[in-house]
Amino acid sequence: MQRHFDEQIQDLQEKLLRMGRTAESMIQMALRALIERNEALAAEVARREEEVNELQMEIDDRAVKLTALQQPVGSDVRFLFMASRIASELERIGDQAVNISENVRHLLKAPPLKPLVDLPRMGEIAEQMVRNSLEALVARDCRLAHQVLNDEQGVDAFRDQIFRVLLTYMMADPGTIERALGLILISRNLERVGDHATNIAEEVIYLVEGREVRHRRESRTLADE
Amino acid sequence: MQRHFDEQIQDLQEKLLRMGRTAESMIQMALRALIERNEALAAEVARREEEVNELQMEIDDRAVKLTALQQPVGSDVRFLFMASRIASELERIGDQAVNISENVRHLLKAPPLKPLVDLPRMGEIAEQMVRNSLEALVARDCRLAHQVLNDEQGVDAFRDQIFRVLLTYMMADPGTIERALGLILISRNLERVGDHATNIAEEVIYLVEGREVRHRRESRTLADE
Repeated sequence: MQRHFDEQIQDLQEKLLRMGRTAESMIQMALRALIERNEALAAEVARREEEVNELQMEIDDRAVKLTALQQPVGSDVRFLFMASRIASELERIGDQAVNISENVRHLLKAPPLKPLVDLPRMGEIAEQMVRNSLEALVARDCRLAHQVLNDEQGVDAFRDQIFRVLLTYMMADPGTIERALGLILISRNLERVGDHATNIAEEVIYLVEGREVRHRRESRTLADE
Repeated sequence: MQRHFDEQIQDLQEKLLRMGRTAESMIQMALRALIERNEALAAEVARREEEVNELQMEIDDRAVKLTALQQPVGSDVRFLFMASRIASELERIGDQAVNISENVRHLLKAPPLKPLVDLPRMGEIAEQMVRNSLEALVARDCRLAHQVLNDEQGVDAFRDQIFRVLLTYMMADPGTIERALGLILISRNLERVGDHATNIAEEVIYLVEGREVRHRRESRTLADE
Protein backbone atom coordinates (compact mmCIF):
# COMPACT_ATOMS: atom_id res chain seq x y z
CA MET A 1 0.00 0.00 0.00
CA GLN A 2 1.33 3.39 -1.02
CA ARG A 3 1.57 5.90 1.76
CA HIS A 4 0.61 9.49 1.17
CA PHE A 5 3.17 11.54 -0.72
CA ASP A 6 3.45 14.22 1.95
CA GLU A 7 4.26 11.58 4.50
CA GLN A 8 7.10 10.34 2.34
CA ILE A 9 8.42 13.87 1.95
CA GLN A 10 8.24 14.12 5.74
CA ASP A 11 10.21 10.90 6.02
CA LEU A 12 12.91 12.22 3.71
CA GLN A 13 13.18 15.35 5.81
CA GLU A 14 13.54 13.23 8.96
CA LYS A 15 16.42 11.37 7.33
CA LEU A 16 18.12 14.66 6.44
CA LEU A 17 17.81 15.72 10.07
CA ARG A 18 19.26 12.46 11.31
CA MET A 19 22.11 12.76 8.83
CA GLY A 20 22.73 16.33 9.97
CA ARG A 21 22.82 15.37 13.64
CA THR A 22 25.27 12.59 12.92
CA ALA A 23 27.55 14.84 10.86
CA GLU A 24 27.45 17.51 13.54
CA SER A 25 28.27 14.99 16.27
CA MET A 26 31.29 13.91 14.22
CA ILE A 27 32.63 17.47 14.14
CA GLN A 28 32.07 17.79 17.86
CA MET A 29 33.81 14.48 18.52
CA ALA A 30 36.81 15.36 16.35
CA LEU A 31 37.31 18.64 18.21
CA ARG A 32 36.86 16.98 21.59
CA ALA A 33 39.53 14.49 20.56
CA LEU A 34 41.85 17.44 19.93
CA ILE A 35 41.04 19.26 23.16
CA GLU A 36 41.17 16.16 25.36
CA ARG A 37 44.05 14.71 23.36
CA ASN A 38 42.06 11.50 22.99
CA GLU A 39 43.31 9.34 20.12
CA ALA A 40 40.53 6.77 20.52
CA LEU A 41 37.89 9.45 20.10
CA ALA A 42 39.57 10.66 16.92
CA ALA A 43 39.48 7.12 15.57
CA GLU A 44 35.79 6.83 16.43
CA VAL A 45 34.96 9.68 14.02
CA ALA A 46 35.95 7.64 10.98
CA ARG A 47 33.66 4.83 12.10
CA ARG A 48 30.64 7.13 12.16
CA GLU A 49 31.29 8.22 8.61
CA GLU A 50 29.66 5.07 7.29
CA GLU A 51 26.35 5.99 8.88
CA VAL A 52 26.39 9.37 7.14
CA ASN A 53 27.32 7.81 3.82
CA GLU A 54 24.53 5.27 4.05
CA LEU A 55 22.02 7.95 4.84
CA GLN A 56 23.13 9.89 1.78
CA MET A 57 22.57 6.90 -0.48
CA GLU A 58 19.19 6.23 1.10
CA ILE A 59 18.09 9.85 0.68
CA ASP A 60 19.24 10.02 -2.94
CA ASP A 61 17.62 6.75 -3.76
CA ARG A 62 14.38 7.72 -2.09
CA ALA A 63 14.29 11.11 -3.85
CA VAL A 64 14.83 9.53 -7.26
CA LYS A 65 12.22 6.82 -6.62
CA LEU A 66 9.65 9.28 -5.32
CA THR A 67 10.18 11.38 -8.43
CA ALA A 68 9.94 8.46 -10.81
CA LEU A 69 6.97 6.76 -9.17
CA GLN A 70 4.86 9.62 -7.91
CA GLN A 71 5.52 12.09 -10.70
CA PRO A 72 5.36 15.12 -8.44
CA VAL A 73 5.07 18.63 -9.82
CA GLY A 74 6.26 22.16 -9.04
CA SER A 75 7.61 22.79 -5.60
CA ASP A 76 7.68 19.07 -4.72
CA VAL A 77 10.13 18.41 -7.54
CA ARG A 78 12.19 21.34 -6.36
CA PHE A 79 12.19 19.93 -2.84
CA LEU A 80 13.30 16.49 -4.01
CA PHE A 81 16.23 17.92 -5.99
CA MET A 82 17.10 20.03 -3.00
CA ALA A 83 17.01 17.05 -0.64
CA SER A 84 19.56 15.31 -2.85
CA ARG A 85 21.84 18.34 -2.85
CA ILE A 86 21.51 18.90 0.90
CA ALA A 87 22.43 15.26 1.47
CA SER A 88 25.63 15.94 -0.53
CA GLU A 89 26.41 18.91 1.68
CA LEU A 90 25.93 16.86 4.84
CA GLU A 91 28.05 14.07 3.49
CA ARG A 92 30.85 16.60 2.97
CA ILE A 93 30.47 17.86 6.51
CA GLY A 94 31.09 14.26 7.55
CA ASP A 95 34.17 14.22 5.29
CA GLN A 96 35.44 17.35 7.00
CA ALA A 97 34.98 15.75 10.41
CA VAL A 98 37.10 12.83 9.23
CA ASN A 99 39.72 15.24 7.87
CA ILE A 100 39.79 17.05 11.20
CA SER A 101 40.16 13.77 13.08
CA GLU A 102 43.08 12.80 10.85
CA ASN A 103 44.78 16.12 11.44
CA VAL A 104 44.14 15.60 15.15
CA ARG A 105 45.73 12.14 15.14
CA HIS A 106 48.76 13.66 13.51
CA LEU A 107 48.89 16.49 16.07
CA LEU A 108 48.60 14.11 19.01
CA LYS A 109 51.98 12.64 18.14
CA ALA A 110 53.64 15.81 19.47
CA PRO A 111 53.16 17.78 22.70
CA PRO A 112 50.49 20.52 22.58
CA LEU A 113 51.65 23.74 20.94
CA LYS A 114 49.46 26.08 22.97
CA PRO A 115 46.21 26.13 24.92
CA LEU A 116 43.33 26.07 22.45
CA VAL A 117 41.02 29.05 22.72
CA ASP A 118 39.78 30.14 19.30
CA LEU A 119 39.51 26.79 17.57
CA PRO A 120 36.87 25.38 19.97
CA ARG A 121 34.86 28.59 19.67
CA MET A 122 35.12 28.50 15.90
CA GLY A 123 33.93 24.89 16.06
CA GLU A 124 30.90 25.88 18.12
CA ILE A 125 29.86 28.48 15.57
CA ALA A 126 30.28 26.04 12.69
CA GLU A 127 28.26 23.36 14.50
CA GLN A 128 25.55 25.88 15.32
CA MET A 129 25.41 26.86 11.65
CA VAL A 130 24.82 23.24 10.65
CA ARG A 131 22.12 22.87 13.29
CA ASN A 132 20.39 26.12 12.33
CA SER A 133 20.48 25.41 8.61
CA LEU A 134 18.56 22.17 9.15
CA GLU A 135 16.18 23.73 11.65
CA ALA A 136 15.52 26.42 9.05
CA LEU A 137 14.75 23.69 6.53
CA VAL A 138 12.26 21.91 8.76
CA ALA A 139 10.53 25.12 9.85
CA ARG A 140 10.88 26.75 6.39
CA ASP A 141 12.33 29.61 8.45
CA CYS A 142 14.11 32.16 6.24
CA ARG A 143 15.03 34.38 9.15
CA LEU A 144 17.04 31.56 10.68
CA ALA A 145 18.54 30.71 7.29
CA HIS A 146 19.71 34.30 6.92
CA GLN A 147 21.27 34.09 10.37
CA VAL A 148 23.35 31.15 9.12
CA LEU A 149 24.58 33.32 6.25
CA ASN A 150 25.56 36.04 8.73
CA ASP A 151 27.35 33.60 11.03
CA GLU A 152 29.80 32.89 8.23
CA GLN A 153 31.49 36.20 9.05
CA GLY A 154 32.20 34.97 12.56
CA VAL A 155 33.79 31.83 11.17
CA ASP A 156 35.91 33.87 8.77
CA ALA A 157 37.03 36.20 11.56
CA PHE A 158 38.17 33.22 13.64
CA ARG A 159 39.94 31.72 10.64
CA ASP A 160 41.94 34.92 10.15
CA GLN A 161 42.69 35.34 13.84
CA ILE A 162 43.83 31.72 14.23
CA PHE A 163 46.05 32.17 11.20
CA ARG A 164 47.68 35.34 12.51
CA VAL A 165 48.30 33.97 16.00
CA LEU A 166 49.84 30.75 14.69
CA LEU A 167 51.97 32.69 12.25
CA THR A 168 53.64 34.46 15.19
CA TYR A 169 54.41 31.07 16.75
CA MET A 170 55.94 29.79 13.53
CA MET A 171 58.00 32.94 13.03
CA ALA A 172 59.34 32.78 16.57
CA ASP A 173 60.19 29.09 16.55
CA PRO A 174 60.43 26.91 13.42
CA GLY A 175 60.03 23.90 15.71
CA THR A 176 56.34 24.81 15.95
CA ILE A 177 55.70 24.95 12.19
CA GLU A 178 54.27 21.46 11.69
CA ARG A 179 51.93 21.70 14.66
CA ALA A 180 50.86 25.23 13.75
CA LEU A 181 50.08 24.05 10.21
CA GLY A 182 48.00 21.21 11.62
CA LEU A 183 45.90 23.69 13.59
CA ILE A 184 45.60 26.03 10.60
CA LEU A 185 44.35 23.15 8.46
CA ILE A 186 41.75 22.27 11.11
CA SER A 187 40.54 25.87 11.04
CA ARG A 188 40.17 25.55 7.26
CA ASN A 189 38.22 22.32 7.72
CA LEU A 190 35.86 24.16 10.08
CA GLU A 191 35.55 26.99 7.60
CA ARG A 192 34.39 24.46 5.03
CA VAL A 193 31.84 23.07 7.48
CA GLY A 194 30.49 26.63 7.71
CA ASP A 195 30.46 26.84 3.89
CA HIS A 196 28.37 23.69 3.64
CA ALA A 197 25.91 24.97 6.26
CA THR A 198 25.68 28.20 4.26
CA ASN A 199 24.93 26.24 1.11
CA ILE A 200 22.10 24.46 2.93
CA ALA A 201 20.71 27.76 4.24
CA GLU A 202 20.80 29.18 0.71
CA GLU A 203 18.83 26.18 -0.55
CA VAL A 204 16.22 26.82 2.14
CA ILE A 205 15.90 30.49 1.17
CA TYR A 206 15.55 29.52 -2.47
CA LEU A 207 12.90 26.91 -1.63
CA VAL A 208 10.86 29.30 0.50
CA GLU A 209 11.35 32.64 -1.20
CA GLY A 210 12.11 31.39 -4.69
CA ARG A 211 14.96 33.86 -4.57
CA GLU A 212 18.44 32.89 -5.64
CA VAL A 213 20.98 33.72 -2.94
CA ARG A 214 23.59 31.19 -3.93
CA HIS A 215 26.81 32.48 -5.41
CA ARG A 216 27.39 35.30 -3.04
CA ARG A 217 31.13 35.68 -3.07
CA GLU A 218 33.02 33.17 -1.03
CA SER A 219 36.58 33.68 -0.01
CA ARG A 220 39.20 31.37 1.26
CA THR A 221 42.45 33.23 0.83
CA LEU A 222 45.59 33.32 2.81
CA ALA A 223 44.52 36.35 4.82
CA ASP A 224 41.44 38.39 4.17
CA GLU A 225 41.98 41.50 6.16
CA MET B 1 6.14 23.08 -29.68
CA GLN B 2 7.82 20.68 -27.27
CA ARG B 3 11.09 19.30 -28.49
CA HIS B 4 11.88 15.68 -27.97
CA PHE B 5 12.92 14.77 -24.43
CA ASP B 6 16.20 13.19 -25.51
CA GLU B 7 17.15 16.37 -27.28
CA GLN B 8 16.59 18.33 -24.11
CA ILE B 9 18.71 15.88 -22.15
CA GLN B 10 21.36 16.38 -24.82
CA ASP B 11 21.09 20.14 -24.34
CA LEU B 12 21.57 19.80 -20.62
CA GLN B 13 24.67 17.72 -21.20
CA GLU B 14 26.02 20.39 -23.56
CA LYS B 15 25.55 22.98 -20.85
CA LEU B 16 27.42 20.80 -18.35
CA LEU B 17 30.28 20.52 -20.84
CA ARG B 18 30.37 24.26 -21.37
CA MET B 19 30.32 24.83 -17.63
CA GLY B 20 33.16 22.33 -17.20
CA ARG B 21 35.29 23.98 -19.86
CA THR B 22 34.80 27.37 -18.26
CA ALA B 23 35.66 26.09 -14.79
CA GLU B 24 38.74 24.33 -16.13
CA SER B 25 39.87 27.47 -17.97
CA MET B 26 39.57 29.40 -14.70
CA ILE B 27 41.92 26.99 -12.94
CA GLN B 28 44.36 27.25 -15.82
CA MET B 29 44.17 31.03 -15.78
CA ALA B 30 44.71 31.26 -12.01
CA LEU B 31 47.83 29.09 -12.24
CA ARG B 32 49.15 31.02 -15.23
CA ALA B 33 48.68 34.20 -13.19
CA LEU B 34 50.89 32.65 -10.52
CA ILE B 35 53.57 31.41 -12.90
CA GLU B 36 53.69 34.59 -14.99
CA ARG B 37 53.15 36.78 -11.93
CA ASN B 38 50.29 38.48 -13.74
CA GLU B 39 47.95 40.30 -11.39
CA ALA B 40 45.50 41.25 -14.15
CA LEU B 41 45.06 37.62 -15.11
CA ALA B 42 44.34 36.71 -11.50
CA ALA B 43 41.66 39.40 -11.41
CA GLU B 44 40.12 38.05 -14.62
CA VAL B 45 39.38 34.70 -12.93
CA ALA B 46 36.83 36.26 -10.59
CA ARG B 47 35.02 37.81 -13.55
CA ARG B 48 34.53 34.42 -15.19
CA GLU B 49 32.93 33.05 -12.07
CA GLU B 50 29.65 34.65 -12.96
CA GLU B 51 29.40 32.64 -16.16
CA VAL B 52 29.83 29.41 -14.20
CA ASN B 53 27.27 30.47 -11.63
CA GLU B 54 24.72 31.35 -14.26
CA LEU B 55 25.20 28.03 -15.98
CA GLN B 56 24.60 26.25 -12.70
CA MET B 57 21.31 28.03 -12.17
CA GLU B 58 20.26 27.33 -15.74
CA ILE B 59 21.11 23.65 -15.45
CA ASP B 60 19.30 23.27 -12.14
CA ASP B 61 16.29 25.09 -13.39
CA ARG B 62 16.18 23.08 -16.58
CA ALA B 63 16.53 19.77 -14.71
CA VAL B 64 13.70 20.64 -12.32
CA LYS B 65 11.44 21.83 -15.15
CA LEU B 66 12.13 18.80 -17.30
CA THR B 67 11.28 16.59 -14.36
CA ALA B 68 8.09 18.44 -13.50
CA LEU B 69 6.79 18.82 -17.05
CA GLN B 70 7.92 15.64 -18.77
CA GLN B 71 7.51 13.28 -15.87
CA PRO B 72 10.43 11.09 -16.86
CA VAL B 73 10.99 7.66 -15.36
CA GLY B 74 13.85 5.38 -14.35
CA SER B 75 17.28 6.25 -15.62
CA ASP B 76 16.17 9.63 -16.98
CA VAL B 77 15.20 10.76 -13.50
CA ARG B 78 18.53 9.50 -12.24
CA PHE B 79 20.31 11.47 -14.96
CA LEU B 80 18.46 14.69 -14.12
CA PHE B 81 19.32 14.44 -10.43
CA MET B 82 22.88 13.71 -11.40
CA ALA B 83 23.06 16.70 -13.74
CA SER B 84 22.07 18.93 -10.83
CA ARG B 85 24.74 17.42 -8.59
CA ILE B 86 27.43 17.61 -11.27
CA ALA B 87 26.59 21.27 -11.81
CA SER B 88 27.24 21.80 -8.07
CA GLU B 89 30.63 20.11 -8.40
CA LEU B 90 31.57 22.31 -11.35
CA GLU B 91 30.45 25.42 -9.54
CA ARG B 92 32.80 24.48 -6.71
CA ILE B 93 35.66 23.98 -9.12
CA GLY B 94 34.99 27.57 -10.19
CA ASP B 95 35.07 28.58 -6.50
CA GLN B 96 38.44 26.89 -6.12
CA ALA B 97 39.78 28.77 -9.13
CA VAL B 98 38.73 32.02 -7.47
CA ASN B 99 40.33 30.93 -4.20
CA ILE B 100 43.55 30.13 -6.05
CA SER B 101 43.47 33.50 -7.79
CA GLU B 102 43.04 35.27 -4.44
CA ASN B 103 45.95 33.36 -2.95
CA VAL B 104 47.93 34.30 -6.06
CA ARG B 105 47.13 37.99 -5.70
CA HIS B 106 48.37 37.82 -2.13
CA LEU B 107 51.55 36.01 -3.19
CA LEU B 108 52.30 38.52 -5.94
CA LYS B 109 52.83 41.20 -3.29
CA ALA B 110 56.15 39.57 -2.36
CA PRO B 111 59.06 38.35 -4.49
CA PRO B 112 58.85 34.72 -5.67
CA LEU B 113 59.86 32.18 -3.05
CA LYS B 114 61.24 29.59 -5.46
CA PRO B 115 60.86 28.38 -9.05
CA LEU B 116 57.56 26.54 -9.35
CA VAL B 117 57.92 22.98 -10.50
CA ASP B 118 55.42 20.73 -8.79
CA LEU B 119 52.45 23.07 -8.53
CA PRO B 120 52.03 23.53 -12.32
CA ARG B 121 52.27 19.77 -12.80
CA MET B 122 49.74 19.17 -10.04
CA GLY B 123 47.49 21.70 -11.76
CA GLU B 124 47.76 19.87 -15.07
CA ILE B 125 46.69 16.60 -13.48
CA ALA B 126 43.75 18.25 -11.74
CA GLU B 127 42.63 19.97 -14.96
CA GLN B 128 42.95 16.70 -16.85
CA MET B 129 40.79 15.01 -14.23
CA VAL B 130 38.05 17.60 -14.73
CA ARG B 131 38.25 17.19 -18.51
CA ASN B 132 38.21 13.40 -18.34
CA SER B 133 35.34 13.24 -15.89
CA LEU B 134 33.13 15.19 -18.29
CA GLU B 135 34.34 13.28 -21.31
CA ALA B 136 33.47 10.11 -19.40
CA LEU B 137 29.99 11.51 -18.79
CA VAL B 138 29.35 12.32 -22.43
CA ALA B 139 30.69 9.01 -23.69
CA ARG B 140 29.28 7.03 -20.72
CA ASP B 141 32.84 5.73 -20.51
CA CYS B 142 33.48 3.94 -17.22
CA ARG B 143 37.04 3.10 -18.08
CA LEU B 144 37.86 6.80 -18.35
CA ALA B 145 35.91 7.53 -15.17
CA HIS B 146 37.99 4.94 -13.33
CA GLN B 147 41.12 6.60 -14.65
CA VAL B 148 39.98 9.82 -13.01
CA LEU B 149 39.68 7.94 -9.70
CA ASN B 150 43.21 6.63 -10.16
CA ASP B 151 44.62 10.06 -11.00
CA GLU B 152 43.66 11.23 -7.54
CA GLN B 153 46.70 9.40 -6.21
CA GLY B 154 48.95 11.55 -8.40
CA VAL B 155 47.33 14.67 -7.00
CA ASP B 156 47.79 13.42 -3.44
CA ALA B 157 51.42 12.58 -4.09
CA PHE B 158 52.08 16.11 -5.35
CA ARG B 159 50.22 17.60 -2.40
CA ASP B 160 52.50 15.71 0.01
CA GLN B 161 55.66 16.51 -1.90
CA ILE B 162 54.82 20.21 -2.15
CA PHE B 163 54.13 20.24 1.57
CA ARG B 164 57.42 18.60 2.47
CA VAL B 165 59.53 20.81 0.23
CA LEU B 166 57.91 24.01 1.49
CA LEU B 167 58.27 22.83 5.07
CA THR B 168 62.04 22.76 4.60
CA TYR B 169 61.95 26.37 3.34
CA MET B 170 59.93 27.49 6.34
CA MET B 171 62.19 25.66 8.78
CA ALA B 172 65.30 27.20 7.27
CA ASP B 173 63.98 30.76 7.07
CA PRO B 174 60.91 32.07 8.92
CA GLY B 175 60.83 34.94 6.41
CA THR B 176 59.45 32.44 3.87
CA ILE B 177 56.56 31.21 6.02
CA GLU B 178 53.78 33.38 4.62
CA ARG B 179 54.69 32.71 1.01
CA ALA B 180 55.17 29.01 1.65
CA LEU B 181 51.73 28.87 3.29
CA GLY B 182 50.23 30.59 0.27
CA LEU B 183 51.65 27.91 -2.01
CA ILE B 184 50.54 25.13 0.34
CA LEU B 185 46.99 26.53 0.31
CA ILE B 186 47.01 26.61 -3.49
CA SER B 187 48.04 22.95 -3.52
CA ARG B 188 45.05 22.24 -1.23
CA ASN B 189 42.78 24.14 -3.62
CA LEU B 190 44.04 21.96 -6.47
CA GLU B 191 43.51 18.88 -4.37
CA ARG B 192 39.89 19.91 -3.97
CA VAL B 193 39.54 20.40 -7.72
CA GLY B 194 40.67 16.79 -8.04
CA ASP B 195 38.12 15.77 -5.39
CA HIS B 196 35.30 17.39 -7.35
CA ALA B 197 36.41 15.71 -10.58
CA THR B 198 36.45 12.41 -8.68
CA ASN B 199 32.92 13.05 -7.46
CA ILE B 200 31.81 13.60 -11.06
CA ALA B 201 33.54 10.41 -12.20
CA GLU B 202 31.82 8.48 -9.42
CA GLU B 203 28.47 9.82 -10.56
CA VAL B 204 29.23 8.61 -14.09
CA ILE B 205 30.14 5.14 -12.85
CA TYR B 206 26.96 5.01 -10.81
CA LEU B 207 24.87 6.12 -13.79
CA VAL B 208 26.40 3.59 -16.15
CA GLU B 209 27.09 0.61 -13.93
CA GLY B 210 24.47 1.30 -11.28
CA ARG B 211 27.26 0.55 -8.85
CA GLU B 212 27.92 2.82 -5.90
CA VAL B 213 31.54 3.91 -5.80
CA ARG B 214 31.05 7.10 -3.88
CA HIS B 215 32.34 7.19 -0.36
CA ARG B 216 35.65 5.58 -0.96
CA ARG B 217 37.86 6.99 1.75
CA GLU B 218 39.10 10.48 1.13
CA SER B 219 41.99 11.94 3.00
CA ARG B 220 43.21 15.44 3.44
CA THR B 221 45.53 15.27 6.42
CA LEU B 222 48.64 17.12 7.25
CA ALA B 223 50.90 14.51 5.74
CA ASP B 224 49.82 11.14 4.47
CA GLU B 225 52.99 9.25 3.97
